[in-house]
Amino acid sequence: MVATEFALDRVLKTPISAPHALPPFARSTVDGYAVLAEDTYGANTGLPAYLSLVGEIRMGARADIQISPTQAALIHTGGMIPQGSNAVVMLEDTQKLGTKEIEVYKPVASGDNILQEGEDIHKGDVVFTSGLRLRSQDIGGLMALGITEIEVAKRPRVGIISTGNEVIPPHEDAKPGQVRDVNSYTLAALVKRAGGEAVRHGIIKDEFEQIYAAAKRAHEENDIVIITAGSSVSAHDITSDVINALGDPGVLVHGISIKPGKPTILAVADGVPVIGLPGNPVSALVIAGNFLTPLIHMLLGITDPSPVPRINARLSINLNSQSGREDYVPVQLVETTDGTMAEPVFGRSNLIFTLIRADGLITIAPEVTGLPAGSDVIVELFPW
Amino acid sequence: MVATEFALDRVLKTPISAPHALPPFARSTVDGYAVLAEDTYGANTGLPAYLSLVGEIRMGARADIQISPTQAALIHTGGMIPQGSNAVVMLEDTQKLGTKEIEVYKPVASGDNILQEGEDIHKGDVVFTSGLRLRSQDIGGLMALGITEIEVAKRPRVGIISTGNEVIPPHEDAKPGQVRDVNSYTLAALVKRAGGEAVRHGIIKDEFEQIYAAAKRAHEENDIVIITAGSSVSAHDITSDVINALGDPGVLVHGISIKPGKPTILAVADGVPVIGLPGNPVSALVIAGNFLTPLIHMLLGITDPSPVPRINARLSINLNSQSGREDYVPVQLVETTDGTMAEPVFGRSNLIFTLIRADGLITIAPEVTGLPAGSDVIVELFPW
Repeated sequence: MVATEFALDRVLKTPISAPHALPPFARSTVDGYAVLAEDTYGANTGLPAYLSLVGEIRMGARADIQISPTQAALIHTGGMIPQGSNAVVMLEDTQKLGTKEIEVYKPVASGDNILQEGEDIHKGDVVFTSGLRLRSQDIGGLMALGITEIEVAKRPRVGIISTGNEVIPPHEDAKPGQVRDVNSYTLAALVKRAGGEAVRHGIIKDEFEQIYAAAKRAHEENDIVIITAGSSVSAHDITSDVINALGDPGVLVHGISIKPGKPTILAVADGVPVIGLPGNPVSALVIAGNFLTPLIHMLLGITDPSPVPRINARLSINLNSQSGREDYVPVQLVETTDGTMAEPVFGRSNLIFTLIRADGLITIAPEVTGLPAGSDVIVELFPW
Repeated sequence: MVATEFALDRVLKTPISAPHALPPFARSTVDGYAVLAEDTYGANTGLPAYLSLVGEIRMGARADIQISPTQAALIHTGGMIPQGSNAVVMLEDTQKLGTKEIEVYKPVASGDNILQEGEDIHKGDVVFTSGLRLRSQDIGGLMALGITEIEVAKRPRVGIISTGNEVIPPHEDAKPGQVRDVNSYTLAALVKRAGGEAVRHGIIKDEFEQIYAAAKRAHEENDIVIITAGSSVSAHDITSDVINALGDPGVLVHGISIKPGKPTILAVADGVPVIGLPGNPVSALVIAGNFLTPLIHMLLGITDPSPVPRINARLSINLNSQSGREDYVPVQLVETTDGTMAEPVFGRSNLIFTLIRADGLITIAPEVTGLPAGSDVIVELFPW
């Protein structure tokens, strides 16, 4: 249970029914006079209807005036329609004569300028389904119904293990041959954005026993386990062995036809999803966006994920792609006189700066062998 | 100053230069053998090059082996290139003979399979400009450079005042004529998403003195002041008078040609931006998205706001619009066999549930008088 006011981006765990109608009473949609519609029939500027002014409906109070035929009461936008009235004449279609009488220059029909009780929401309507990730307006809607506390899905805990003899914590000076840990932090940020809670389980040397010990603890304490492998081939093999030792069925998929990210491992160990990510920071983030984000959404119970934000653009250069493999290419969006161009960002290194220089990714489908310059492409903005 | 690991979505206040090159040393991009390229020239499966194996470059350690002509050292992806070597032969293009010799079946050129020092980032390069709102990969890039603490822009404080005699706090039971406060909470959520810090200054009765007192305090304590007016015309006039009393120059714009949101007030009082928003929750949120979000981004110093996420769709019905006015129409996205359709969500009430049922907005430009069913439209997803 959380306070609704702090629930932005949380996911509703249970559907919510309206405890009362909205609006809860018939209200005026304009500033004017509450009248009986029949009293205004045929009125025009040459022959106005004359009504006696019996008072004012104060905002925020019960309308305790009773309107009888040939009577009118001043009412403000949002004011409660008084008993006996069935329409509101707009202020600009009237003229006040002294303090006790008004002239009406335009007829109104029954219901005009009135929002009826329950016109928006009926009592008992299911107004929010479970699995909704709350936006600003959803918080407003809950407040309108007086629902100031709600049950939300627990944030899935994602345990992150970085491996590699060459990897050191970011605050340390890198000696020759060493690189600072990037993946623990990019993945933790991605997890946070996806709605999960990241738990870093440290940087572990490329040895089976050490990785197994860290993975076992992460497996016991979290809802999802992520292991980013060292970059060598033997390191991948250790990751795979560790995952198989964690529980059944173990590794389901080892290697996927995606670039970057080929050496990805997808696994389940005793009911806990485990993902082995490539150590390369670009691959790790692209694969996490494709597999980890949807997994977190699934555990949160999100039923209808937001559409992926995307921008239509034209490709600036020719791109080759291997048939049978899905390629993700980081691109920069550049506005030109010819429209929005997508300029691929290349980095042989696949260091994280390739993604830093990019605005989003374009996908080249497995059956496509390349895209010529000028192709219409859809750029998916980074969801992380 | 904040810890980089907690800086997702914060905005960099100062540009950041690379304290060292990336990669900081020449490294192998493959698993293989570090060699002298010249020793492999002309090698093929029929006539391999024979090299003596002098050791292994361990991951994470300085490459303390010296490669002399006709020598090779085992190296892993990411390993440091040893002195004397200028290329790496891939493992699959070699065969080990005993423990002291290898056969090489394919020649390599100088620089092959090596990522040179500084190939990605040179020491002193400005790698992040100020005004960048940090994404997951940006946090990773900072970590790669060992920058674990950064200076970020202070979150602009936005004081929010709700006015209206009919408005009550959400936790209270609404008596006839009363409605619960929605705007304070939807706007606070919008402010948070935009990168600001919302401060609610309560619900104030529609009287000049009371609103002035609250506005004066909000004006002293915040970087931006938002006043949502009561829904009646006289309430708008009070808001305008209060803003003019707060400081010079006061109200700059009163009324804009936008639907919903016509009665918007844009003002500056003694250097503090003040926005008077319509009391209607839909208008308040749409106008805040158009004016308050960019204002917060400006105060944060964001130089290059993310492109607005948008979806191309086709309009499901005819829409009329008044010439000279910009219309924002909430729509639901519906996937059909004809592609993505944008279905306008109407609510005569303009209660917050109109936006709750929608996925985004389409904009009808002032010079357009309507859009026929089937028009191609761009749906901007709610940025709040």
